[in-house]
Order: sequence, then structure tokens, then C-alpha cells
Amino acid sequence: MSLFQFWRRKPTATVARDRLQILLAHERSSFGSSDLVARLQEEIIAVIRRHMEIDPDKVQIKLDRGNHVSTLEIDIEVPLSERAKVA
Amino acid sequence: MSLFQFWRRKPTATVARDRLQILLAHERSSFGSSDLVARLQEEIIAVIRRHMEIDPDKVQIKLDRGNHVSTLEIDIEVPLSERAKVA
Repeated sequence: MSLFQFWRRKPTATVARDRLQILLAHERSSFGSSDLVARLQEEIIAVIRRHMEIDPDKVQIKLDRGNHVSTLEIDIEVPLSERAKVA
Repeated sequence: MSLFQFWRRKPTATVARDRLQILLAHERSSFGSSDLVARLQEEIIAVIRRHMEIDPDKVQIKLDRGNHVSTLEIDIEVPLSERAKVA
């Protein structure tokens, strides 16, 4: 089972809206305190804002800093009114 | 098992380099031909280039356009010489 097949099997909370998910993982070969993923967070959200209005209430961000792997998950509900821009 | 636990269990081809993985999924509530994920690809890579030199040979990009879900996977090996910028 590929990673994306696993992803698709997750239940969707809302079926009336589009959804954009972004996952980042920075895996370091040695211990370190790199905060690359945290720094990319704001810039990637800015990129998405160029394409659609994002309601802050519809964005979930989860950042997990580990010694070897830092992960960032961004989950955005896209209002249907934004479909014209997205399509 | 969370998505990220699943991710971490994937074997790493190279242990001497850092690795940055980015996964995007655009899930549409109705059929459509939105190419949002494809359009975000270049801009997100440009964001990462601001933080590190990317060797084109060390970047793997996989784009899958579906009727309901489009997914993009970007996998980047980060040269150890770039650690100073990243850390």
C-alpha cells in the first residue's frame, strides 16, 4: 500500500468542501536542531494564499519537532466559492 | 498508526544525507480538472531553493492527477554541506 493510498483512506470530515493537505518531513542524518520545516511553514502558506483566500478558521497546522525528523502537517478546507480560482 | 509514523517507517535510501519530503493532496468534493497541485509544485520548490541549493539530480517529483484527488510528492536529498544554511 503506497503512502497516498493510505492517505486517501482517511475519512473526510466535510464532503461539501475541497481540501488541501500538505505534509512536510525533514529527516536529518544526525542529531540537530534544524528548524527548516517551521521556517517553510509561513512561506508555503503564503504560496497557497496567492491562489485562494484562506479562512484562518479552516486551517489546521500541526508541527512536530524531533531529534531526527521534524514534520509539519497543514490541512486546509477550501471554500467552494474559491473553486473558480482553483479550477 | 498515524500518517507520519507510517512515513517514518519507510526505508531511507541514503543515511549520509538529510532528506526533505513534501506531500500535497488536493481532494475535491466533486469531479473537476483542477490543476492546483501542479501549479503549486514550482512555487514550493522555489520556496525551498531560498533556503538551500537543490541538486536537480537529487529531486524526485511524482504527480498523480485523479478525478477527485490530485497528489504531488517531492523528495529532496539535502547535501550535508547545506546543513549550515538549514540548521
